[in-house]
Amino acid sequence: MSGRRKAVFIVMDGLGDRPTPELGGKTPLQAAKTPALDRLAKEGQNALMDVIGPGITPGSDTAHLALFGYDPHCSYPGRGPLEVLGTGLESRPGDIAFRSNFASVDSNMVVTDRRAGRFFTPEEQAALQEAIDGIEIDDIQIRFLATVEHRGALILRGPGLFPDITDVDPHETGLKILECKALNQESQKTADIVNKLMIEANRRMKDLPLNKERAKQGKPPANAILLRGPGRHGEIPTLKEKYGIKSVVIAGGALYIGTAKYVGMEHVHVEGQTGTIDTNFHNIALKAIECIKSDYEYIFVHIKATDNASHDGNAQEKILAIERTDAMVDMILKAVGDKIVIAVTGDHSTPVTHQEHSCDPVPIVIWANFMRSDSVERFSEIDAAQGGLHTIRGMDVLPLLLGYSGYIDKYGA
Amino acid sequence: MSGRRKAVFIVMDGLGDRPTPELGGKTPLQAAKTPALDRLAKEGQNALMDVIGPGITPGSDTAHLALFGYDPHCSYPGRGPLEVLGTGLESRPGDIAFRSNFASVDSNMVVTDRRAGRFFTPEEQAALQEAIDGIEIDDIQIRFLATVEHRGALILRGPGLFPDITDVDPHETGLKILECKALNQESQKTADIVNKLMIEANRRMKDLPLNKERAKQGKPPANAILLRGPGRHGEIPTLKEKYGIKSVVIAGGALYIGTAKYVGMEHVHVEGQTGTIDTNFHNIALKAIECIKSDYEYIFVHIKATDNASHDGNAQEKILAIERTDAMVDMILKAVGDKIVIAVTGDHSTPVTHQEHSCDPVPIVIWANFMRSDSVERFSEIDAAQGGLHTIRGMDVLPLLLGYSGYIDKYGA
Repeated sequence: MSGRRKAVFIVMDGLGDRPTPELGGKTPLQAAKTPALDRLAKEGQNALMDVIGPGITPGSDTAHLALFGYDPHCSYPGRGPLEVLGTGLESRPGDIAFRSNFASVDSNMVVTDRRAGRFFTPEEQAALQEAIDGIEIDDIQIRFLATVEHRGALILRGPGLFPDITDVDPHETGLKILECKALNQESQKTADIVNKLMIEANRRMKDLPLNKERAKQGKPPANAILLRGPGRHGEIPTLKEKYGIKSVVIAGGALYIGTAKYVGMEHVHVEGQTGTIDTNFHNIALKAIECIKSDYEYIFVHIKATDNASHDGNAQEKILAIERTDAMVDMILKAVGDKIVIAVTGDHSTPVTHQEHSCDPVPIVIWANFMRSDSVERFSEIDAAQGGLHTIRGMDVLPLLLGYSGYIDKYGA
Repeated sequence: MSGRRKAVFIVMDGLGDRPTPELGGKTPLQAAKTPALDRLAKEGQNALMDVIGPGITPGSDTAHLALFGYDPHCSYPGRGPLEVLGTGLESRPGDIAFRSNFASVDSNMVVTDRRAGRFFTPEEQAALQEAIDGIEIDDIQIRFLATVEHRGALILRGPGLFPDITDVDPHETGLKILECKALNQESQKTADIVNKLMIEANRRMKDLPLNKERAKQGKPPANAILLRGPGRHGEIPTLKEKYGIKSVVIAGGALYIGTAKYVGMEHVHVEGQTGTIDTNFHNIALKAIECIKSDYEYIFVHIKATDNASHDGNAQEKILAIERTDAMVDMILKAVGDKIVIAVTGDHSTPVTHQEHSCDPVPIVIWANFMRSDSVERFSEIDAAQGGLHTIRGMDVLPLLLGYSGYIDKYGA
């Protein structure tokens, strides 16, 4: 259909904040200089948004599901499957997916280092991956991918697996790896497989040449794996199936990439996108513009730096992350402003004074050059409360974006 | 109960709009002179309303169901039954209802004119109606009503009918009438009946004297019917059953009359109500006042002219339609303002710059001379964003109107 626009969605992680004493009572967003975002706020429509619902503090994973138009109460598979999808290990419906650590244990399976020293060479990672990936226990196949430092992703694949099991990680050194227990009868098989896997992985890892080499260098051995965040995802309709759109995620963190893949988005890599304050905002803007000009119809950009600064309680760094995002938005507007409908928001609030996620709603602005404006003049948590979109929820964002972009058919005749 | 008011509901079709360059960036509603509507906005309560939901572009039929307080996702029977009800052909739960055209076909059922010339005398319409109405195929009875020009309404009545079938109209001349196919097993009988009906209608129509006469005059024969928009409505509770109110629709278009009848309203005819810019607004006002003074408790007035102007991209005509509606509202207020609670809104937006329905929310004002006011001073899409009703949905309108009018009992004691 002619007249369709590209739907662009920019999420600054943990954007929402509270009045901050070191900023004279302003929020970091109020204190930041944001000419591009202020232009959107002035010309577009604004709101304070409850991403999940009033009073509910969103997790990053549930928040993104809601922002992609899925009810997290129905569609949330747990963090494991989402993060595993983000690593590139393709989990399938029915698989049980975990996040995993390499760890050091003694001969009694007592944990001596929960991260086995944290640092691994690519060769060590490859050797450990080869030792674990492909293990078979009874009728269950294990898939494993080493990712960053001591981290990895692990999948159990086979019939009759359910995810309601207890943790094996004692979360302290000096304690034995815990026995995995089933929290209901249908998950008993999964618990049994996990317990056998703890022993089998240790058997395969402990005598690897790399561990002899590490011992010589005084490094702790990588002779066990600790699993956490088990989950099992069902089949959900993709964005393509729901709306017929081709969609893409531009993000650094595995969780955001994974959640986007879960709903059927493709991932494109950006050189220098690190998820920290030093991420390459310029390259992210260029990639977003490239995607908008290509056949992608929904382009999702995730900026992590705002949340990292918030968790560190660093108001100045949060301001800097916001200002760099503003410059990125400005590049996009100048290049393709007449081709897009754009929404900018956060996935949750992480006040720098609180350093954790909070239930405070987040500011959101939706803009296209044909839209009505409301009375808001600046993009901030305080101004957005006067916005014409009033109280919207995270699940409303995608329909609004796609409605104005022309991708949702008229309902009825 | 003393203190009850009459609930008056005025819908300007396609009212909502966007900033319009030829109006200096104003919307047609902002550009129009609307002293009566502005008085309502200043003294009453306002909102921008999502008729179905955020981002959803409403059809006229689904929109009106929502505005009458029915969830269209549960209660929408398809356009056919609603429009058929509006023609005066009384469809019942279980019937399959279609909109129909008289058409011309050759001896191989190839369509040569999809409207059979469009124009028919009342005598021709009566003869064609007599030929089709009352056909019986197996255990199914056919009811047919000729309406305007080549148009008509058709019902299949009998056991075991379901509406999930494909179209018979090839939508081009030179192509054969299509075979009707069932989209699921339970609709097979309906498809079979439709295919037999195509042949039987042709058999009865082709040798009618009127077609011999038309041939002499060089007019195409009316020797086939094309059916579209099949639907089957269930039982839904009427407004009388839900609220105990006696309600009436003042409208010109069959779809609006039909949707109103579907929820149990009566229809009253207004001399000169055409649904165009030349409709007789004065007579509509007089009829509304008459209904308000009678024993009707809920009076729904539909103005179509705003939408026609929008689909034509004619901003000046849309302004004129709005201003004439304003004068109509003024007459009602002057005559019976102290006896009513009134709501004025649109069923959806049709921006003149877009010429199609869009997802933009619509302004709504609710007024009674005893209500609180909010800070809004003018009736427009821009001002309404500041209204005290904030974000309401189409389904909220009827409860609000009837609540303030005194027709909804206290919930609890």
